[in-house]
Amino acid sequence: MAETPFADLAAFRRLLAELPEPDRGAEAAARARDGILTKPPGALGRLEEVAIWYAGWRGVERPQLTAPQVVVFAANHGVAALGVSAFPAEVTAQMVQNFKADGAAINQLAKANGARLDVHALALDRPTADFTKGPAMAEAELVEALAAGWAAVDPGADLLVCGEMGIANTTSAAAIALALFGGEPGEWTGRGTGVDDAALARKRQVVADGLAANPQAAGDGLEALRCLGGRELAAMAGAILRARHLRIPVLLDGFICCAAAACLEVARPGALDHALGGHVSAEAAHAALLQRLGKAPLLALGLRLGEGSGGALAIGIVRAALACHSGMATFAEAGVSDA
Amino acid sequence: MAETPFADLAAFRRLLAELPEPDRGAEAAARARDGILTKPPGALGRLEEVAIWYAGWRGVERPQLTAPQVVVFAANHGVAALGVSAFPAEVTAQMVQNFKADGAAINQLAKANGARLDVHALALDRPTADFTKGPAMAEAELVEALAAGWAAVDPGADLLVCGEMGIANTTSAAAIALALFGGEPGEWTGRGTGVDDAALARKRQVVADGLAANPQAAGDGLEALRCLGGRELAAMAGAILRARHLRIPVLLDGFICCAAAACLEVARPGALDHALGGHVSAEAAHAALLQRLGKAPLLALGLRLGEGSGGALAIGIVRAALACHSGMATFAEAGVSDA
Repeated sequence: MAETPFADLAAFRRLLAELPEPDRGAEAAARARDGILTKPPGALGRLEEVAIWYAGWRGVERPQLTAPQVVVFAANHGVAALGVSAFPAEVTAQMVQNFKADGAAINQLAKANGARLDVHALALDRPTADFTKGPAMAEAELVEALAAGWAAVDPGADLLVCGEMGIANTTSAAAIALALFGGEPGEWTGRGTGVDDAALARKRQVVADGLAANPQAAGDGLEALRCLGGRELAAMAGAILRARHLRIPVLLDGFICCAAAACLEVARPGALDHALGGHVSAEAAHAALLQRLGKAPLLALGLRLGEGSGGALAIGIVRAALACHSGMATFAEAGVSDA
Repeated sequence: MAETPFADLAAFRRLLAELPEPDRGAEAAARARDGILTKPPGALGRLEEVAIWYAGWRGVERPQLTAPQVVVFAANHGVAALGVSAFPAEVTAQMVQNFKADGAAINQLAKANGARLDVHALALDRPTADFTKGPAMAEAELVEALAAGWAAVDPGADLLVCGEMGIANTTSAAAIALALFGGEPGEWTGRGTGVDDAALARKRQVVADGLAANPQAAGDGLEALRCLGGRELAAMAGAILRARHLRIPVLLDGFICCAAAACLEVARPGALDHALGGHVSAEAAHAALLQRLGKAPLLALGLRLGEGSGGALAIGIVRAALACHSGMATFAEAGVSDA
């Protein structure tokens, strides 16, 4: 594992406070270039804003996408024992094997989109504590998971997607969303991988109990992550912050990824300025969470798988946006009459 | 040009009447496979339906996408002289040069999505007749353009996107939509490449005048295409029908492509069963047209460029869907516990 620049949560908080901003010069140059390409103004829709945003973060007027990275973190949850998932907890480890054997959806999606895929199983034999009884993680456990995420990012990557696998982790994500944004437990609690009505009711109760047992999580990003999160959520948050410091743009995945990301945003508004919504999933509360984060998703294809699948799918959109922006001729170059 | 199997419109009508259907056996096999892949049922959302649909048309349980083709047809319109576009008519020919020089958006999008791109300029020096005075094309001209589209399809392609370039062709598409589906001219008339209010009002009038001058186009797919269309619209219709006979799935592009496709669907309900909506554009009436065709778009990114751009962008979604479907492990293969 690469050395991490934080040994404790205070040091992590400092890294979260000192965030680099995009290169406004490169952004302005990209915007000017966009205005003279051979197309009516705005005719490439969101592809144009994606390219300009990306150019700013990479500090390059005409960027190309050459090294996207997908990182999947897996972990187990104490609340899985409470009957909140359609699948048994052993599936987390089985799916890690499936990732390693190239058999899962994310393997195919990463490959199809030319992305490197890394998988990190985080202490699968040590589920987090049952958060209906108290904090899911001690501070040292949180720091360890944040550090695992930080270290997982390839500094040579030029786009990052974080994915996750962890039976019961939509329950964790729902509890975090409730802690950060309030509302009713039912607003944030969905069917995840497909629970029946009875399990959905239990899940809702677990979410409510989680917040009752961890009142310090309310409105506090990193406390919500520690008390209600899991190792894979904390690792995603660590990776997303690392990407910010490396000015690597991020595509957010589904509900769980966005719950992890929201912990950063609540702790430090603007922390997700280097991230776009990759997709909106079929998990009921994901759209609401994206809205709270101010992220309009690039794709809406009804996915609800996790693993980074929706984010990985959106890599192709970013690649296409950059290909147009950086590869098209200008009106002058092409000898085309302007409007 | 490859030999075409129709010398007149009657022969084309016969080809439109005798349409091959998908391979229901391959479709069923793909559906069964989808049900045992290592994911919760339905968790890949629309990617699953896309893969099953594609498998049926190709007659293969586990298909791969290896040879997508984008074909762009360009033509000029008599109504361009009526001030309905933000760009002068010479831009059609200039953009054809830009396509040939690899400088346009569609060049970058085809390349980024691994597609072959072919460009066919159709008698640019002979604009169609002004359809506010009578039919845009004689029957022989329509047949010639349909044949150009038919011949342009690579029989070895495994996915087809048709695009277009033709100053004033949103006016033509709006007139076709009005003829086929009724309503008010203003419902189908949008800003195209970005006309101002005065030009938009002229455009609306031209659309209304077009239908008044060609009453035989109302509700008649091929007459609407002949009287109100253009060579590039007719060529797209010819290509889409050829693809059907070759069982090559099609991704529809924007408003103009869909207006051309709608001529086939109105002439022969079910003619577009081998086509999906690639995207919904920012051109106001495109969503309504897709709805009339019963096509839910895969993408909604605010494009309004034509050239096949939205369809080409959606190639990546189809490739990803097939990669998951054909590449993933089953629960049994991966040793993962089912729900």
